[in-house]
Parts: sequence; structure tokens; C-alpha cells
Amino acid sequence: MKAIATIMLRDGVLDPQGDAVRRALDHMGFAGIEDVRQGKVIELALSGNDPEQARRDVIEMCERLLANTVIESYRVEIEECGRP
Amino acid sequence: MKAIATIMLRDGVLDPQGDAVRRALDHMGFAGIEDVRQGKVIELALSGNDPEQARRDVIEMCERLLANTVIESYRVEIEECGRP
Repeated sequence: MKAIATIMLRDGVLDPQGDAVRRALDHMGFAGIEDVRQGKVIELALSGNDPEQARRDVIEMCERLLANTVIESYRVEIEECGRP
Repeated sequence: MKAIATIMLRDGVLDPQGDAVRRALDHMGFAGIEDVRQGKVIELALSGNDPEQARRDVIEMCERLLANTVIESYRVEIEECGRP
């Protein structure tokens, strides 16, 4: 089973990496870019079979280690690859 | 319109950040973690209305700036928020 945790800075928290990317894309001639936010994604390969348990585990990982919940928000997706 | 580019190190490319996260999670008592890969996600707010054009633009951004395609792969998702 695969879990994907996506961790982004909360709205309102300054994102200098995202701003730098937006400026670079502007300078390269890409038009119509209103905003860019950069975050991190953590893909976990898990041995368990229970997607609900996996979701609870990954949420706990985010709360305790992966995200700084003061300034970051996260979302968790579970993919049951290769299962009927 | 919102576009999400997810950029990961290719399989086979050493991922020390992912390994560090896996070790930390092991030490915290999380069981059943087989592999961890860490990548980056770039969320773009775009003013255009054509999702296919947006996808082509974001692929070009990945090829030219956002990803190092020698060692990184990327995937692009387009979300047409708030449209029927």
C-alpha cells in the first residue's frame, strides 16, 4: 500500500521559495501565473492491508514529525496499488 | 484554475531525505514502513481557462525549470476549481 502526505505552508504564511519560482517563471515568459506555493510530498510504502489504519498512522506521522502544524497544513492520500 | 506539479527523485536515485524520515519514523515506533521517498510539490494558480493548455504549460515549466529530469520525474494534475 502506498500513502502520500502532501505538506504545504498555510495560507498567509510567507512562501519565499514559491515566490522565487513565480518570479523565475515570469522572467522565462510564462504568462497568467497568479500564485505559486511550494511544499513537500512524502511517499510511503507500507506493508499493512488496512487503508483506514494506514490513514490514521500517516496522520499521526504528520502531526508528530512530518509537518510543523503551526505553519504547515497537510493532506493524506492512500493508494491501494495492485489490489483488486 | 489550479495546477499541481509533483517532482520526485527517480527510482534508483539515492534519497537521503527519505531515508532520514524512514529512520526517524522507525525510531518513533511506527511499524511496517517499507520505503519513504521525499519530493516537492509546486501548486500554481493560473488565470487561463483551457486545462489542456495549462497542462502543456506546466509540463514545459517542469522540463525547463522545476525538475531536473536527469534525476527527477514529475507528474502534473490540473484542477478546475469552482467550474461546473
